[in-house]
Amino acid sequence: MLKIDAVDFYYLSMPEVTTDADGSQVALLVSVTAGTHRGWGECEASPLTSIAAFVSPMSHGACRPVADSVLGQRIDEIADIDRVAALVERQSMDLLQAVHTWSGIEIALWDLLGKIRGEPVWRLLGYQRAGKKLPYASKLFGHDADDTFRRVTRASSDGFRAVKVGWGPIGQGRVEADQEQFMAAREALGPDGQLMVDVGQVWREDVSSAQLRVPGLEAAKVTWLEEPFLANAFDAYGALAQRSSRVRLAGGEGAHNALLAESLIEFGRVGFIQIDCGRIGGIGPAKRVADYAAQRSVTYVNHTFTSHLALSASLQPYAGLVDHRICEYPVAPRALARDITTNHLDIDRSGELSLPDSPGLGIEINESALQQYRVDVEILVNGRRLFKSPG
Amino acid sequence: MLKIDAVDFYYLSMPEVTTDADGSQVALLVSVTAGTHRGWGECEASPLTSIAAFVSPMSHGACRPVADSVLGQRIDEIADIDRVAALVERQSMDLLQAVHTWSGIEIALWDLLGKIRGEPVWRLLGYQRAGKKLPYASKLFGHDADDTFRRVTRASSDGFRAVKVGWGPIGQGRVEADQEQFMAAREALGPDGQLMVDVGQVWREDVSSAQLRVPGLEAAKVTWLEEPFLANAFDAYGALAQRSSRVRLAGGEGAHNALLAESLIEFGRVGFIQIDCGRIGGIGPAKRVADYAAQRSVTYVNHTFTSHLALSASLQPYAGLVDHRICEYPVAPRALARDITTNHLDIDRSGELSLPDSPGLGIEINESALQQYRVDVEILVNGRRLFKSPG
Repeated sequence: MLKIDAVDFYYLSMPEVTTDADGSQVALLVSVTAGTHRGWGECEASPLTSIAAFVSPMSHGACRPVADSVLGQRIDEIADIDRVAALVERQSMDLLQAVHTWSGIEIALWDLLGKIRGEPVWRLLGYQRAGKKLPYASKLFGHDADDTFRRVTRASSDGFRAVKVGWGPIGQGRVEADQEQFMAAREALGPDGQLMVDVGQVWREDVSSAQLRVPGLEAAKVTWLEEPFLANAFDAYGALAQRSSRVRLAGGEGAHNALLAESLIEFGRVGFIQIDCGRIGGIGPAKRVADYAAQRSVTYVNHTFTSHLALSASLQPYAGLVDHRICEYPVAPRALARDITTNHLDIDRSGELSLPDSPGLGIEINESALQQYRVDVEILVNGRRLFKSPG
Repeated sequence: MLKIDAVDFYYLSMPEVTTDADGSQVALLVSVTAGTHRGWGECEASPLTSIAAFVSPMSHGACRPVADSVLGQRIDEIADIDRVAALVERQSMDLLQAVHTWSGIEIALWDLLGKIRGEPVWRLLGYQRAGKKLPYASKLFGHDADDTFRRVTRASSDGFRAVKVGWGPIGQGRVEADQEQFMAAREALGPDGQLMVDVGQVWREDVSSAQLRVPGLEAAKVTWLEEPFLANAFDAYGALAQRSSRVRLAGGEGAHNALLAESLIEFGRVGFIQIDCGRIGGIGPAKRVADYAAQRSVTYVNHTFTSHLALSASLQPYAGLVDHRICEYPVAPRALARDITTNHLDIDRSGELSLPDSPGLGIEINESALQQYRVDVEILVNGRRLFKSPG
C-alpha cells in the first residue's frame, strides 16, 4: 500500500513580473512523494495564496487546510484520487482557494500513478489513443487595425493555421473600430485560417454592448468569441448565444469545479468549453467536463498559459476526443515557463501537436530551474513555521 | 477627498480550534482607515489564506493582490465602493480567494461611510426603516431521535419560536431513522414553531437520495431543507425543487458573487437564499441578491456564524424587506465571537431582533479582545516581510 508521504511546493518567478496578461511569468509546481515514487503537477494562479491554503490553521471542521485531507492518504488506485478530492471538497468547503491548491496536487497524483503503472495518463483515463491537436497562436490586439494586421501576419508566417487575438482596446471604444480590428486579423490570416477573438470579460453582464460587435465578428468569420462576460454570468452568455448563431461563444477558464463548467454549457450555451486543469480541481473534473461537452456537441479546449507540464496535463482530459482538434499553446512564454521542463511538446512540421506516449504526463522537471527561479516563502503563525520553501 | 490610507487585518482565534462545524472559533477582522475615519468589517473563512490574497506578489495583470486595487483609492461616495469592487474583480480575476478578502474590506467601507455621514448602513442602502427579524436557533442533530428531541426542547424552552437542526447523521443511514429525527424535532418544538433542516451538502449531486427524505420532511412540516447538494449543483437543486413542492429548498452561503446566488434562484429554484456578506463580496452584492430575491418571491436570509459585527453587516442588505422575517443568529458562539464587540444585537422579550439606528454598522470593537485572541502572522517572500500582524 502506497500513501502520500509528502507534498512540496515550488514557487518560481521571473526576476521581474509585469502587468501583462501573460500567465507564464510565475509558476507553482507541486511534487507528491509516495514511497520511492514522485509525481509532478502545477497550480494555476497566485502561488503564495495557494500555499497558504495548504498550511493555513483550521478555522472549523469545514474550513480545514488542504494538507489535512491529503497527507497520509492511501494512493493505490485511480479511485483514491476521487476519494481524496471529495475529502478536500468537504473538509475545505469554506476555503475558496483550496481547489486551486488541490488542482496541482491532483495532477501530480495522476502523474505518479501513471509512472507506477508505466502508462500515459490519457490511457488511465480510458482513451485508446491520443489524437493530434491543432495549436493556435495567442496574440494581443494591437492599438489599431494596422497594428493588429502586422501581429497576425507574423503568427501566420510562423506557420500557424489558427490564431486567437485578444484583449487590447476591444469593447472599450467605437463599434466600427472593433470591426476594423476583426477584419484586419482576418485579412492577415487569409480566408482559410481559424480566427478566434478573446475579450477577457470586458462587457461583464452587458449583453447589448456585446451584441453590437456580433455583425463584425460574423463578417470576419470568427470561430469563437471568448469570455464576453464575467465567468459566472450564465444568463448573459445564454442571451448572447441566442442572438449570434454564426459566432459561437467560448468560456470556462474561470470554472473552479466541473459543475460551473457544465452550467456554462447548459445555461450559457457556449459552443467551446475551455478548461484549466490547474484551477478546476485537476484532470479528473476536467475529464468529466470533456465527456459532458462531447455528449452535447460542445467542443472541449484546454486553457493553458504556463509550462509544458501544465500543457501536457491540460491536454490529457480530451486526448482521445479526436473531433476536438484545436488546442491552446503558449507560443511565446517567458523563459521560466520553458526552462521548468527538460522536454517539451513541440509543434511538428504539419503544425500539429502530439501528446507523449511515456508514463504519467511524460514531462521531465528541470531541477536546476527550480533553483534558478526559486522564490523563498516563509510563513510563521504564532512563531511556528508553517511553511518554508524547499531547497 | 478621502482615500483609503490603510487596511489592517486582525486574525483572532480561540486557544483551541476543534473540528466542530462552528464558525465562531476564529475570526478575521478588517479595519480600513481613511484620514481620521475608521471602519470595521469581517471576512468569513480561513484568515491566513485571506491575508495572503491581500499581500501576495502579482502573478500577472489579472492576478494581482487585493491590496493593489484598494490602497490609495478614493472613498467619498457609495459609488466608490462599487468602483473599487469592479477593480478588484478585474485585477484579481484569477485569484480565487480575493473575494473573501475583499468582502471584509467592503463591509468596513460601508461602516466607514455610514460613520462619516452619521447614518446607519441600511439607510445608505435606501431603506426607510429596518424591520424586526425573527432569529432562529441553530442546533446540531443528536446521534438519535431521542437526543435530538432533548436538544430542540432546550432551544424551545430558551424562548426560540424558530429552530434549525443540522448536520449530524442525516442522509448517511436509514431513511426511517432520518424521518424519526425530523419528527422528534417537530414534537419538541410544538406545532406552531418554524422548523428548518440543514444537511450540509451531504448528497452532493444525488437527487434520488434527497428525494427519499422529502416525505419525512413534509410530515414534520419543515419550512426549508438547507444545502441538500454542493453549492454549485444548480441542476440537482432544480430537480429536487420540482419534486418537493411543500418543502422549499434553501442555499446560497457558498455563493462568492451575486451571479452564483442568482443562479441558485433561477436554475436551482430555491425558496430561501442565504447570503454570507463575508464571502459574497460584502454588503453591495448581498443587497443586489436581496432585490433579485424579493422580485421573485424568494425569501432572503442572512448566513452568519461569527461576531455581532458580522451579524449587523449580514442583516443590513435586507433590513427593509419586512416580509423577509427570519434571520440566522449565532445562539451559543465561542467566547471569542462575543468578546470581539462591546455592544451586541440582543434578542428582545418578544423573541425578535432590531438593527441599531446608530451610524455605520452600529457595533463597537473591543480593542482588548484584539490583543487577547491575537494570532501573530508573519509572511516573508525572498526575505522581505509582506505581512506582520498589527499590535
